[in-house]
Amino acid sequence: MKWKAYKKGQDVSYAFGAFPTIELIKNKPEMVVEILISEAFSEKDMLTEMIEKEAIKYEINDKAINRLSPKGNVFVIGVFKVGLEEIQDNNHIILDQISDMGNLGNICRTMLAMGLKDLVTIGNVCDIYNPKTVRASMGAIFYLRHKHYDTIQEYLKEYPFLDRRGFSFMLNKDSKKLPEVKVCDKWSLIFGNEGSGLPEEYREISEPVIIPQSSDVDSLNLTTAVAIGCYHFTNII
Amino acid sequence: MKWKAYKKGQDVSYAFGAFPTIELIKNKPEMVVEILISEAFSEKDMLTEMIEKEAIKYEINDKAINRLSPKGNVFVIGVFKVGLEEIQDNNHIILDQISDMGNLGNICRTMLAMGLKDLVTIGNVCDIYNPKTVRASMGAIFYLRHKHYDTIQEYLKEYPFLDRRGFSFMLNKDSKKLPEVKVCDKWSLIFGNEGSGLPEEYREISEPVIIPQSSDVDSLNLTTAVAIGCYHFTNII
Repeated sequence: MKWKAYKKGQDVSYAFGAFPTIELIKNKPEMVVEILISEAFSEKDMLTEMIEKEAIKYEINDKAINRLSPKGNVFVIGVFKVGLEEIQDNNHIILDQISDMGNLGNICRTMLAMGLKDLVTIGNVCDIYNPKTVRASMGAIFYLRHKHYDTIQEYLKEYPFLDRRGFSFMLNKDSKKLPEVKVCDKWSLIFGNEGSGLPEEYREISEPVIIPQSSDVDSLNLTTAVAIGCYHFTNII
Repeated sequence: MKWKAYKKGQDVSYAFGAFPTIELIKNKPEMVVEILISEAFSEKDMLTEMIEKEAIKYEINDKAINRLSPKGNVFVIGVFKVGLEEIQDNNHIILDQISDMGNLGNICRTMLAMGLKDLVTIGNVCDIYNPKTVRASMGAIFYLRHKHYDTIQEYLKEYPFLDRRGFSFMLNKDSKKLPEVKVCDKWSLIFGNEGSGLPEEYREISEPVIIPQSSDVDSLNLTTAVAIGCYHFTNII
């Protein structure tokens, strides 16, 4: 099979690098299509042994690796079918129109570290299956469940904020300060775009919260804000 | 003056981009040597007006900008004398042998957001004055005070952990869980290298703490750990 450079919407994507590929194989063997390995990969024997146990197809194919990852320095590629399992009725992290794949991957990693496995994306959001996102997640994406909604209203039809409470991270002055928020049973934490934040409508449909911060900075960066939000809600009672 | 590409140890460095340069001018006008502006910079008039008020030298000099920043996409460079003010006897963030300038810059930004202005570096640490660090900090570095020590022992001679308590972020199982740490009056938070963490000796000289995290991930990334540490200590009582 002659794999082509990834384009959004195609039904396979690529995990670049041995570490994310191993996470893929360990956690989502059913998503794996094939593993491509470079002749020059130093731990080829260990990897092929692991793959053979899982009855997964692999190929030593430097040409394909160079074609898919023109920047070099990649020795293993996991080709996988896109499509994570759907979210469950747990605590959710909701990302509305975020645009940076590095941030999205990083957030996946933070979520996993905090034991949060259900990720929701809303609207015109960057591509969760792009190899850049996968790589930034260090393979954490393969532990998560995911569902995309075009609008927050569609999400709320399935998961209304009733016994589940929704907290929107917004810089408005009347937002409640995060350290003062008592943690409840079931929650959704909502974060907006890197530049523009969340649309005003979130103030009506959820509880706005703010991470106290100095006026000297513009704002915390998105991944930092998500990490602090996750820490607060998973650790403070 | 013909500025040369930055090398560690030289007595001037460069803030690349209008935003970090404006932070430099606003906060540390005494550090500014000269501002270089591209003919193509869209807000040239506004910037030169601001500079003239501060009686700072500037030059429209595309040649110098291209030479200093070969990657392009930079329209303003602030040339500044290295050397931040020394730390004061406040709460400290201590970074031991961290190696990534992007991380260091990002940590500066997080510190500033949390109102923490005193940064300590220990040992073989990446260069705080490198243009990459400055840029990653978005200029936050120009709000901070800084002191470097070759060893933690030298730091402890000046700032012993007596009434000041020192907390080392270490993944050992017997580290105290961060949410259980009651915040004290004056503290130093210590973080280690991205790959290897803190040397074992820190367990003896300080109080080891751990951010609770799932065994599914290797570890939180450094900037995330620092952000969570800062949040806990500046917000939780």
